[in-house]
Amino acid sequence: MPETSTQPGTAQPAAYTPTDRTVPTRAAKRAVYDRELVHSILDEGYVCHLGFVRDGAPVVLPTLYGRVGERLYVHGSTGSRPLRMTGQADPGLPVCLTVTHVDGLVLARSAFHHSMNYRSVVVHGIAHQVTDPDERRSALDALVDQVVPGRSSDSRPANARELAATAVIRLDLNEVSAKLRTGGPNDDPEDLALPHWTGVLPLTKGYGTPVPSGDLASGIEVPDYLASL
Amino acid sequence: MPETSTQPGTAQPAAYTPTDRTVPTRAAKRAVYDRELVHSILDEGYVCHLGFVRDGAPVVLPTLYGRVGERLYVHGSTGSRPLRMTGQADPGLPVCLTVTHVDGLVLARSAFHHSMNYRSVVVHGIAHQVTDPDERRSALDALVDQVVPGRSSDSRPANARELAATAVIRLDLNEVSAKLRTGGPNDDPEDLALPHWTGVLPLTKGYGTPVPSGDLASGIEVPDYLASL
Repeated sequence: MPETSTQPGTAQPAAYTPTDRTVPTRAAKRAVYDRELVHSILDEGYVCHLGFVRDGAPVVLPTLYGRVGERLYVHGSTGSRPLRMTGQADPGLPVCLTVTHVDGLVLARSAFHHSMNYRSVVVHGIAHQVTDPDERRSALDALVDQVVPGRSSDSRPANARELAATAVIRLDLNEVSAKLRTGGPNDDPEDLALPHWTGVLPLTKGYGTPVPSGDLASGIEVPDYLASL
Repeated sequence: MPETSTQPGTAQPAAYTPTDRTVPTRAAKRAVYDRELVHSILDEGYVCHLGFVRDGAPVVLPTLYGRVGERLYVHGSTGSRPLRMTGQADPGLPVCLTVTHVDGLVLARSAFHHSMNYRSVVVHGIAHQVTDPDERRSALDALVDQVVPGRSSDSRPANARELAATAVIRLDLNEVSAKLRTGGPNDDPEDLALPHWTGVLPLTKGYGTPVPSGDLASGIEVPDYLASL
């Protein structure tokens, strides 16, 4: 496994190094390791799916995340299951963290060639609890800014009680791959004359109108960083 | 673990039976077991995140799925990793299958209370390869109809070669929970006078204009089941 430094500010190669776990057995041509592409897919998401092993069985939970350079952060209550399992004293928790965007429905003439256009990132590694106060604070800022960029500086930072109740775990971006599918269906030549419509139905994402809390004081307007989304 | 029958047509209780694995350690009030709600969350999704254990470490992969009653199906090449691991002769593969919809960004006055509105379903169980030809065909239809309802009857069904290349695995809906968060932020009373905007930014999903394949014959129009989406 590559042991690339994840220190912020350290120069990084343009791509992650493939490993046995990040080279797929099928559709290997869809796997890419470009660092900027991986970052862009991660930065576009709100929720990751975090996998870990409990009593020998897999568990996959959706959870918020944030990125600082080559480090991903997940947080939660100090009482929650995966967070408890990454205690500082132990050697860390093996995890797999996956982020997926579905971009379009691919309708082929044959049922067999139906597919999705998508972009996903899969990160394998060992998650560790973060104890350094400065790193915890910057991780929590990143988690809030993943929700809405700029929001961490327009909200009350965590106080001592909240910090004590929050576990932050870190997963370094070392063993990483992205997978993408783009373009139209790949129908077989013998199917081209079939009468079925074929193509891609794009999926779109957007934002609705912000809904202010019922107890919001009058005069507090929707901030620019929300209005501009 | 409950051993509810998943035979189609069998009367089912209105809710799944909670187990140790489906009662969360935190935010237990967000967990629900209502069968219709679970079905509706599953039916709205395109991609699940399938977790399994390989060499002692978790793997989480995005993949298409389909539902037939109380059975979920996932398919793939017979050569792909999780599919190979569910060979008919072995006792099956422990998996965790998760589907998540993110409905809104919850912006609290405090960083600590930032959250998401979401709906997710987590299914634990043992995945088995499906060998019965009829069940395989109905599973493949369900996988296509999950992409676009009605599409399986407007495409060429899989032929013998394609069926031989496709592994179908089944996961019964026995050990299942849904989690939901709705509504606005839950700010602490002492934060109510802070000057930050607070509320929910809804996330919307939609469809773009269908993009026909370049080799689509003229005269084949966008079908009603697409145009009506």
